[in-house]
Amino acid sequence: MTAKDRVAVIGASGYAGAELVRLISSHPKVSLTLLTSRQYAGKPYEEVFPSFTGYVKQKCELFEPEDAIKKADIFFLALPHKASMRVASPLIEAGKKVIDLSADFRFNNLESYETNYQKHEVPDLLQKSVYGLCEVYKEKIIDADLIGNPGCYPTSILLPLIPFLKSKLIDSQGIIADSKSGVSGAGRTPSLGTLYCEVNEGFKAYKVSEHRHAPEIDENLSIAAGNDVNIMFVPHLVPMSRGIVSTIYARCINETNENQLLDCLKSTYSNCPFIRILPEGRMPNAAHVRGTNFCDIGVKYSPNHGMAVIVSTIDNLIKGAAGQAIQNMNIMMGFSETDGIEAMPFSI
Amino acid sequence: MTAKDRVAVIGASGYAGAELVRLISSHPKVSLTLLTSRQYAGKPYEEVFPSFTGYVKQKCELFEPEDAIKKADIFFLALPHKASMRVASPLIEAGKKVIDLSADFRFNNLESYETNYQKHEVPDLLQKSVYGLCEVYKEKIIDADLIGNPGCYPTSILLPLIPFLKSKLIDSQGIIADSKSGVSGAGRTPSLGTLYCEVNEGFKAYKVSEHRHAPEIDENLSIAAGNDVNIMFVPHLVPMSRGIVSTIYARCINETNENQLLDCLKSTYSNCPFIRILPEGRMPNAAHVRGTNFCDIGVKYSPNHGMAVIVSTIDNLIKGAAGQAIQNMNIMMGFSETDGIEAMPFSI
Amino acid sequence: MTAKDRVAVIGASGYAGAELVRLISSHPKVSLTLLTSRQYAGKPYEEVFPSFTGYVKQKCELFEPEDAIKKADIFFLALPHKASMRVASPLIEAGKKVIDLSADFRFNNLESYETNYQKHEVPDLLQKSVYGLCEVYKEKIIDADLIGNPGCYPTSILLPLIPFLKSKLIDSQGIIADSKSGVSGAGRTPSLGTLYCEVNEGFKAYKVSEHRHAPEIDENLSIAAGNDVNIMFVPHLVPMSRGIVSTIYARCINETNENQLLDCLKSTYSNCPFIRILPEGRMPNAAHVRGTNFCDIGVKYSPNHGMAVIVSTIDNLIKGAAGQAIQNMNIMMGFSETDGIEAMPFSI
Amino acid sequence: MTAKDRVAVIGASGYAGAELVRLISSHPKVSLTLLTSRQYAGKPYEEVFPSFTGYVKQKCELFEPEDAIKKADIFFLALPHKASMRVASPLIEAGKKVIDLSADFRFNNLESYETNYQKHEVPDLLQKSVYGLCEVYKEKIIDADLIGNPGCYPTSILLPLIPFLKSKLIDSQGIIADSKSGVSGAGRTPSLGTLYCEVNEGFKAYKVSEHRHAPEIDENLSIAAGNDVNIMFVPHLVPMSRGIVSTIYARCINETNENQLLDCLKSTYSNCPFIRILPEGRMPNAAHVRGTNFCDIGVKYSPNHGMAVIVSTIDNLIKGAAGQAIQNMNIMMGFSETDGIEAMPFSI
Repeated sequence: MTAKDRVAVIGASGYAGAELVRLISSHPKVSLTLLTSRQYAGKPYEEVFPSFTGYVKQKCELFEPEDAIKKADIFFLALPHKASMRVASPLIEAGKKVIDLSADFRFNNLESYETNYQKHEVPDLLQKSVYGLCEVYKEKIIDADLIGNPGCYPTSILLPLIPFLKSKLIDSQGIIADSKSGVSGAGRTPSLGTLYCEVNEGFKAYKVSEHRHAPEIDENLSIAAGNDVNIMFVPHLVPMSRGIVSTIYARCINETNENQLLDCLKSTYSNCPFIRILPEGRMPNAAHVRGTNFCDIGVKYSPNHGMAVIVSTIDNLIKGAAGQAIQNMNIMMGFSETDGIEAMPFSI
Repeated sequence: MTAKDRVAVIGASGYAGAELVRLISSHPKVSLTLLTSRQYAGKPYEEVFPSFTGYVKQKCELFEPEDAIKKADIFFLALPHKASMRVASPLIEAGKKVIDLSADFRFNNLESYETNYQKHEVPDLLQKSVYGLCEVYKEKIIDADLIGNPGCYPTSILLPLIPFLKSKLIDSQGIIADSKSGVSGAGRTPSLGTLYCEVNEGFKAYKVSEHRHAPEIDENLSIAAGNDVNIMFVPHLVPMSRGIVSTIYARCINETNENQLLDCLKSTYSNCPFIRILPEGRMPNAAHVRGTNFCDIGVKYSPNHGMAVIVSTIDNLIKGAAGQAIQNMNIMMGFSETDGIEAMPFSI
Repeated sequence: MTAKDRVAVIGASGYAGAELVRLISSHPKVSLTLLTSRQYAGKPYEEVFPSFTGYVKQKCELFEPEDAIKKADIFFLALPHKASMRVASPLIEAGKKVIDLSADFRFNNLESYETNYQKHEVPDLLQKSVYGLCEVYKEKIIDADLIGNPGCYPTSILLPLIPFLKSKLIDSQGIIADSKSGVSGAGRTPSLGTLYCEVNEGFKAYKVSEHRHAPEIDENLSIAAGNDVNIMFVPHLVPMSRGIVSTIYARCINETNENQLLDCLKSTYSNCPFIRILPEGRMPNAAHVRGTNFCDIGVKYSPNHGMAVIVSTIDNLIKGAAGQAIQNMNIMMGFSETDGIEAMPFSI
Repeated sequence: MTAKDRVAVIGASGYAGAELVRLISSHPKVSLTLLTSRQYAGKPYEEVFPSFTGYVKQKCELFEPEDAIKKADIFFLALPHKASMRVASPLIEAGKKVIDLSADFRFNNLESYETNYQKHEVPDLLQKSVYGLCEVYKEKIIDADLIGNPGCYPTSILLPLIPFLKSKLIDSQGIIADSKSGVSGAGRTPSLGTLYCEVNEGFKAYKVSEHRHAPEIDENLSIAAGNDVNIMFVPHLVPMSRGIVSTIYARCINETNENQLLDCLKSTYSNCPFIRILPEGRMPNAAHVRGTNFCDIGVKYSPNHGMAVIVSTIDNLIKGAAGQAIQNMNIMMGFSETDGIEAMPFSI
């Protein structure tokens, strides 16, 4: 038996960090050797997440680059934007594999990043990074050292749309994505808007046509379409913990039907273990992918409107964050793509 | 003090029926004199809805037309489609006021009703009925004897869209309404799809582009636009009990801005106590209208897309059912429009 | 028409404060003339609680004793413990009526307060204050100037137990209260423990046998029993916004039955509009009192155990806070006891 | 590689059945060869539980004893009481291993079963069956052919209490168990009481001191205590899908402390991988065991009351049903006790 690769989770006290820790703890090929959290440094991790009692024995540490470099080979960064780029540099220089869950390495276009986020401090690293949308950019990921792990909303929108744009089945202009997310997408830092009583029995749109995931989506849709795409993207908050559902409206270029649309998805994703194309007449439900790395996709064509309605769902913390990050690691490291993320969904 | 008008609720065992009973019980101008339910006939109403203990002393009765005619002056029908049309006939013949919460009297166009529902047994009554969208058809409602009370989704979509169509601010073609409803919209009859464990922690689209509320919406949007409108309507199920949020996408005919759009709504609804137009930059939340007869509306204009995103919210059981029915009664009977439905929303 | 009494809510930015504002806004005998909040001073109140849009026009102000004394006659204090005692002093000196929702004026026994909270800065005021458990201490409340409004858990436990203790139907020793509360009881200040994702799909006990409501309960049970009572009190957190259910276990002194137990409650509370004694065989549900000032009580006697199981429920923000505070005001001011708090519960 | 044992799930359309299917599908030592459901016979199982799409290829079949005997070696019965005893007989006669999730084989005492349920049709089989509370009766389970899998509430109450009774740390008289369960315990058959809108934002006690799990608990507590135990058991319904929390009150025979109580549990369960004894000062949360086979236990001792408060939590569908059933199979078949049920809990 060969030694397992050593993995670090930098910024382990948020929900995505916790999912990383959970998935890594059960992964057959790697072992968790470093857990960092500024807020909880020195505290046993199982006190930060009591459900992990008995599973994770480590304490949270402070991130110290030199020490970290000694302790692990693969680094997952679950840090806020900006913090990530500073942490990534020394790790990449030391020859480590880095998978970053922030937005810092998601863009090809520096200007787009800087317009929507802030000045980029390591633009050369941005150039070297690969956008980790596994099913679409797998060939690049294989050789990458630095992955910008996709945003949750973008994952749910790009996976169903890219095949249609590449095959010219839908018009690249006028696409609308009406997305709905569970509350964990907003993170674990206490805030008024994510209190139980503020969310429960409510539903709202937010950042209408202003969310920073839109340029991330546009960049990748444009690559697929071969021309500029400018999606209308409106996110909403759902009173549930996990899950994203995106309902996407796109005009079809020619008259079509559900079978043709579904076939396009099926042939594109025939070798992709985490994409489930639902049969005609069925639509996805966030509950059915909860706890898994699946993206479920259903399609309806309306001849009256010449329009396809495409509905996709993911678990925002797994396929939309930690699960896809593990999938990226699996691809980079030559593991089986499903290692550690093959859990079957619950019935309810 | 003059005698109060006597009111009957026919079909009082569902959620809309219960809300009618609640609102009528506190209404200053009417008194509840008849409660019917086939399923619970003979049973004290407070055993059917235990929260009403101490408020509603009546037992559920079977509906017997001759008896009912003697007992009440105003009839609310909270019955399934088809049952309503049969019950309405003898009541109208006897000179009663009837407000029907089913779809049976919502359509002007007989063919549209029969295509989407079933054969209409009293088409002449359909001709005499008025569509009870209070803020839009108030003048007709004043003189009506028979009201087809609007559907919940249509109410949430028609109120924000009609002013824009009338003032030609938006294109009547290509409108998309992505609506989200709480579970009470599906009624109180036990079914697998509305069990707690099936809904909780899930989110899904259903009847995509096939829901029977679409033709009801189209008929009224077409009247406002002066031409045929064919909306793309996709409903979703939210894990909450009450509330609808509709996110509506419409292309603007000319360049515009939020102020112009909001002004159009404000001037249209300036005398409407149940419409709240939110200030620029705010978007509605289903929680903020829960338990009330309000429709809250917010608007965002995206110059990049030349598109308005209009978000509306109502309580599906009140403005979307029982509350609007009471409002219709108030208008028909010459009461103050807000009588019995002026409750202030809760903070949470 | 006589002028309405002027009311101030000091500390209006929490959930209890918001419920006070809501109830006062609809109260027929008083008008809201001052709203204070340190955190939101200068901000329109309807931006703090957007559901109140159109109802509450005031801005939040800073509390300035001299100014406040000019602006209002009756003061509700919805402040943290300790802040209340400091604010109450100048108001009482100025001859105002004060209803305090903190623990600062709930105790007869100074030592008990100081052991469980902190040093009391105005112990003479504590002596003059009256514990505002309306149904039990009504005679004292009529003449009071300063009310210590009861805690939410104590209200739910004292109302069902006091009649049994007074009539010697139950043993005052060995009583256990297993209480369950919705999340709003923890307040509106953001904290990890009240985030949606931390509460949702969970259930836990907390402060087991250590909660500061226990001495408040004991003091009042002891008065009723005529001897020292030391209850075992364990609170739990329920994933819902509002509501408390207390399941109380007490040994019966003699063999008895449900009828005798229910009769004791019925005769004690025969003139109390907010107590609903459920018929034999029915047990209360937090949902059935939500949004109301009711306390619902059900009783089961187990002959095998010689034990009564008493289950009570209240809305923690209303009968457990703002509603009972209004009821106290009604009693103090000679209004009808139900003024402003007679809303009927929802069906769901 | 040896052939895997073949497993059948009889009655696979409920929640416990679905969890059995899920756990068996991922179990390393067995394979699922028969799935039966009267209601869904002929239907692909993944249409009954769409989250299983891609995992379970079988159709539901009707249960035919002769056919079933050919298809499987180990049988899980997830049937209603009474149906189970009829199905079990031919299977046991054919030499199969049977794990029954109903109450039909849980009692030693025939009279107790018949008083609380109905006439037992195969009392001799009842005599041969073993109560499958794994941590307590492991030695008997090893040799059993027929297991009566414990009820969900009993599991949550027996595991924490039995060690204290055996070691005479607590008084066997006067024990109270106040239990709270998520909604899935009520099953998947549509009923008014388990509709989303009836459960959401509510909390209630039910079957107070009348639940049929009490005699099952008493029988096993009596064995541990060596004398008759008659627990006071009150179940409650929590608005969550999964999980049970039992808060148990027991008088201590001598003065003690948390350390002594925790040590008793720790030493009893030192080799039990599914029991987590929480450190002093921590109490369990249903969320922390969701999706797992754990029973978490916390203890508080109140010197004032001479009483221990013991709080336990399980996932009612796993440790309280399907997971414990798999654990029983593992023990009977000589597999590792954790095979197929070692999943780590989620962070949220």
